[in-house]
Amino acid sequence: MDKLTKAQRISLITKILVDHPFHMYTLQYFSEKFQCAKSTLSEDINLIESVLRKNDEGEIISVSGAAGGIYYAAYMKPEQVEKVKQLICQKLNDYRRVIPGGFVYMNDLFFDPKMLKKMAECIITKYKEHRIDYVVTIETKGIPLAMAIANERGIPVAVIRKSARLSEGTTMQMNYVTGSSKSIKTMAMPIRSIQRKSNILLVDDFMKAGGTAKGMADLMSEFEANIVGVAVVLATKEPKQKLIKDYYTLVEYDGVDETKKTVKIIPA
Amino acid sequence: MDKLTKAQRISLITKILVDHPFHMYTLQYFSEKFQCAKSTLSEDINLIESVLRKNDEGEIISVSGAAGGIYYAAYMKPEQVEKVKQLICQKLNDYRRVIPGGFVYMNDLFFDPKMLKKMAECIITKYKEHRIDYVVTIETKGIPLAMAIANERGIPVAVIRKSARLSEGTTMQMNYVTGSSKSIKTMAMPIRSIQRKSNILLVDDFMKAGGTAKGMADLMSEFEANIVGVAVVLATKEPKQKLIKDYYTLVEYDGVDETKKTVKIIPA
Repeated sequence: MDKLTKAQRISLITKILVDHPFHMYTLQYFSEKFQCAKSTLSEDINLIESVLRKNDEGEIISVSGAAGGIYYAAYMKPEQVEKVKQLICQKLNDYRRVIPGGFVYMNDLFFDPKMLKKMAECIITKYKEHRIDYVVTIETKGIPLAMAIANERGIPVAVIRKSARLSEGTTMQMNYVTGSSKSIKTMAMPIRSIQRKSNILLVDDFMKAGGTAKGMADLMSEFEANIVGVAVVLATKEPKQKLIKDYYTLVEYDGVDETKKTVKIIPA
Repeated sequence: MDKLTKAQRISLITKILVDHPFHMYTLQYFSEKFQCAKSTLSEDINLIESVLRKNDEGEIISVSGAAGGIYYAAYMKPEQVEKVKQLICQKLNDYRRVIPGGFVYMNDLFFDPKMLKKMAECIITKYKEHRIDYVVTIETKGIPLAMAIANERGIPVAVIRKSARLSEGTTMQMNYVTGSSKSIKTMAMPIRSIQRKSNILLVDDFMKAGGTAKGMADLMSEFEANIVGVAVVLATKEPKQKLIKDYYTLVEYDGVDETKKTVKIIPA
């Protein structure tokens, strides 16, 4: 490789870090790649760290020690999180979204990588102090959100199924009672999905009474998992008392008024 | 904003471009953001373009004209695509993956954002010459792959369901015959999912006889969609004659030998 200029190194290092969130790179790695002194690289990285931070473009985290290095994390400032919450409300508070039955159509938000990235950045910021090994969700609509969060944290997703699949081997299967309609449903997860005693973040698009989230938490206890948190994008304001105690939501749903033709979704 | 140095601008521009693949930025945008002459920015961008390209870290694409600008695309060189194919094979050709029924357990690959990113980069490289408006997949295991591809192309995903949901409004519903087991199944997609006459890329994790892919293509024709291509990660070697003519696969599955205890998956 030809010797790079400072500007070229800065561009490449920024690219590599941002492209692989939470992946730990050592100075040694860049030093070998660029045939360049560690002291020079250290200056480069300080420059990148400082310019990204000052411009609200995420953080470069340094970890000292033998297993140390640097990595990129797309953490947001509180005012950026507020902006995302407002953007979600602005998009959802549109009566044209209301479909027969009084539901609010939201697929476009939950299947849009750009929106999901913003939501995911809010959620990883909330759990920045925690060690997380897996993001766990239940099929189907929580999957894109779980993938976006996992991508920003550089960890895998495990998906709970509504029934066991032949192609996924032995599963842990459980019946649970839904929170709102009190019906009995099944959830199942392949035993190979996560390792025992893992730290997991439970994720879903939507929470009403919290029956599904509670079911997920119960199933996780069979895997001896430690639940770091429960995060959703949208929780209903009623019932106030959810079946799960601690959860994080970005916005709150306060109903559709079919007479006034309004949707009421507010930042949490 | 304080005036930035060249190295600081380079870091920020690289970050913004790489963080939003396929998002078109104008020189005007950066010029206003950084209070800096367009000619200077043009030099910065040339430098970034050249160093990323030379180091196989994707491409900066310039589009001329009134609606023009620059964007980042994670296109791969042919030898990088080969490496990804080999990595998938290396991971899958492990007899410990074989589960009762002779299936090969693959969830860890299809729910790992790092692997999905590599697969997605191969697939967007294959379709680099095409205009694509939506990535369309069928629940469940194709969703993470579809999301990864959509993320790299900066477009949304639309998910075909195995049955209609109350919360998704009116759906287009269709029965189809699976290619291998010849059983009758249903697929449904909310009519709000995609606009008429869109260009779509059909995506799934796995293809056997191609019945599902054909079903998806048939359902898409009800939306008057133009199918740009059909992409999967893994296709079985047999039957050679699939129900769908043109498809792109990264690797081929040639069976499990339960006596020799081997799995045979090869680059396509």
